[in-house]
Amino acid sequence: MAVIVQKFGGTSVGTIDRIKSVAERVARARDAGDQVVVVASAMSGETNRLLSLGRELTMRPDGRELDALVATGEQVSVALLAIALGARGVPARSFLAHQVRLRTDSGFTKARIKGIDADVLLSALNEGVVPVVAGFQGVDDRGNTTTLGRGGSDTTAVAIAAALGHGVACEIYTDVEGVYTADPNVCKNARKVGRISYEEMLELASLGAKVLQIRSVELAMKYAVPVHVRSSFTEAPGTWVVGEDESLESVVVAGVTSDRSEAKVTIRMMPDEPGRAAGLFEALADARISVDMIIQNPSAHASPGRPGVTDMTFTLAKGDLEHAQSIAARLCSGLQVDVDHDVVKVSIVGLGMRSHAGVAARMFRLLADEGINIQAISTSEIKISCLIHAKYGELAVRSLHDGFGLGD
Amino acid sequence: MAVIVQKFGGTSVGTIDRIKSVAERVARARDAGDQVVVVASAMSGETNRLLSLGRELTMRPDGRELDALVATGEQVSVALLAIALGARGVPARSFLAHQVRLRTDSGFTKARIKGIDADVLLSALNEGVVPVVAGFQGVDDRGNTTTLGRGGSDTTAVAIAAALGHGVACEIYTDVEGVYTADPNVCKNARKVGRISYEEMLELASLGAKVLQIRSVELAMKYAVPVHVRSSFTEAPGTWVVGEDESLESVVVAGVTSDRSEAKVTIRMMPDEPGRAAGLFEALADARISVDMIIQNPSAHASPGRPGVTDMTFTLAKGDLEHAQSIAARLCSGLQVDVDHDVVKVSIVGLGMRSHAGVAARMFRLLADEGINIQAISTSEIKISCLIHAKYGELAVRSLHDGFGLGD
Repeated sequence: MAVIVQKFGGTSVGTIDRIKSVAERVARARDAGDQVVVVASAMSGETNRLLSLGRELTMRPDGRELDALVATGEQVSVALLAIALGARGVPARSFLAHQVRLRTDSGFTKARIKGIDADVLLSALNEGVVPVVAGFQGVDDRGNTTTLGRGGSDTTAVAIAAALGHGVACEIYTDVEGVYTADPNVCKNARKVGRISYEEMLELASLGAKVLQIRSVELAMKYAVPVHVRSSFTEAPGTWVVGEDESLESVVVAGVTSDRSEAKVTIRMMPDEPGRAAGLFEALADARISVDMIIQNPSAHASPGRPGVTDMTFTLAKGDLEHAQSIAARLCSGLQVDVDHDVVKVSIVGLGMRSHAGVAARMFRLLADEGINIQAISTSEIKISCLIHAKYGELAVRSLHDGFGLGD
Repeated sequence: MAVIVQKFGGTSVGTIDRIKSVAERVARARDAGDQVVVVASAMSGETNRLLSLGRELTMRPDGRELDALVATGEQVSVALLAIALGARGVPARSFLAHQVRLRTDSGFTKARIKGIDADVLLSALNEGVVPVVAGFQGVDDRGNTTTLGRGGSDTTAVAIAAALGHGVACEIYTDVEGVYTADPNVCKNARKVGRISYEEMLELASLGAKVLQIRSVELAMKYAVPVHVRSSFTEAPGTWVVGEDESLESVVVAGVTSDRSEAKVTIRMMPDEPGRAAGLFEALADARISVDMIIQNPSAHASPGRPGVTDMTFTLAKGDLEHAQSIAARLCSGLQVDVDHDVVKVSIVGLGMRSHAGVAARMFRLLADEGINIQAISTSEIKISCLIHAKYGELAVRSLHDGFGLGD
């Protein structure tokens, strides 16, 4: 008899009928001999409804109160799910964060989990009761309600699976059927991946494949929780996110993604003195602005006793752009600062890159064959990203997807 | 600097604009030098919306889960109120039942308060923060969320005032301007009462003057909490509910009420044997059916060695009627059981009755003068009730109201 955690997202509990379907699915898993712990998100649209109530009062609502407000969304879902399970003949009990002591730090609206009390859940399971735990919420050391940020229910589910013991799997029911080799809206022949490693999933998630909250994948990797991402509308298996050893499909490239959320900043003719770049990026870090890609051209016009100049380029989230521009203007007064919104970052991800030479070269060739100019490059062990003009985004994804043989 | 508790009902927090008005009112009380603790109900309509979600799943939702579900209504209100106060420049913090340890028994959907931790509230007040406490909800010894029944936020507010110390007053803001000598919809000349005793208020509340939850009045009486019932839409003073000593207006009759919620049951020709009536009313009590008025006619047709027969009449809530009929049919098989829905109970209430003779006689005369037949009578120290045909309800209230000189 295995213990499993089943997490249902907002669309899966979006209506009374869907809540009944969820209860039916949980009942079937239980009939099949599993002990099920359920985690649920707010009904779809509810979190936004609550947020807009708060924002009607003031543009900057207090974080603590915002969390107290939006946490009600999950509370409604879990109570309704417990009622639905009871009506289906399955004994069930809803739990809020404070009732399972799901402790977090006090970072309201983006708190981090510190621990969870599995005893409450285990004793419910021993009574034959299905615990239905509110996702997304936590409680800090002072008893305040916190929330884990958008998509936080995924992290709740993985944390619970980890707390319940080694090997407890976590099923994430969502409105897509799993993880694909590329966005099926862009690549008609994109293929559902059967198994993928945590590392690859992390790179894919942070690059725009918005299937799982990135922190849930980090947590799953840390505690070796097998995660099964699948659709709540079908019975088809989805994608297993597992350890590298279990990830049988260690192909060279597991997937292609694109990300339009970044902008490019270039500072022209920056004096190439020691500490100059450090000063700029320290100031950005102090302002909590994350910089992604950084490119510095070789220094030019240097002569003995006089530093050369260089063009410094970096990318960052479009939302941080205005703030970053004002910092750059202050630290680099007199220099030309160019900004480009029309960029997209296209990336290939795969564990196999570590042992296969020439993957980067092949990527550049595939883009060049389409006449696409590469503006910046960044690489990690299992990922290569190229910044290109936004208009080439879909073309680049399709060309890389086919070029690396990912299609059906 | 006085500490006061201000409780706002569902209509007072029913929209974002009204929540802003509440924040404004709290700010003014604070500017005037008071330390304010706020208690809020769910936004009007919200509790019913949540209940109907639960009932869409099953006709008999589990009590624990129903409480977890509906308690979210108050959580939304207090978070929004705290945000509104913050936006108005008043530091505020929302609290749920588990955060102020408002402990109850485990009687889901109608729990009773066992205690409350005033320290959390006092330390917020000492920080200059306005605590905004969710009404209606509690937490039992096992950490389950409970609710106090309809109107329970009144009881929350009074319990908090009692816990904060002797003499702390409780203002109940509602959509009426106070307690009236009769329903103003029935008596155009009904007058707002300035002060009324707890005892009178209890009789009025249980008889249908639905201004305050009856348990809140019991609690206020027990802990001598002065309660001020007033409108959230005007600045006019409302009605103070206070101890008998402070209730200056100890008039003979304080008010007239009517109650259409009961039905009358008559069992004809019941053998007048010892224990026969006891057996019936014990069976009703075992089924948790409250019987209100009981009338037994003098026994007739008795002869030595053979008991007489009697007609036994009682009233009870219409909702319990079907259940009571089946019990009566079982215990009194072969006897005729008559049921009458078309009755109304008209009552006069007043502390002065204790010292004034002839009040009952005057009531019966006033009704007789209108040609109204009295079907049953019950009396307490400060109340006289008459059961009459439903069609005479308004006429009887007006006639008693004028006859006892209660109008303007």
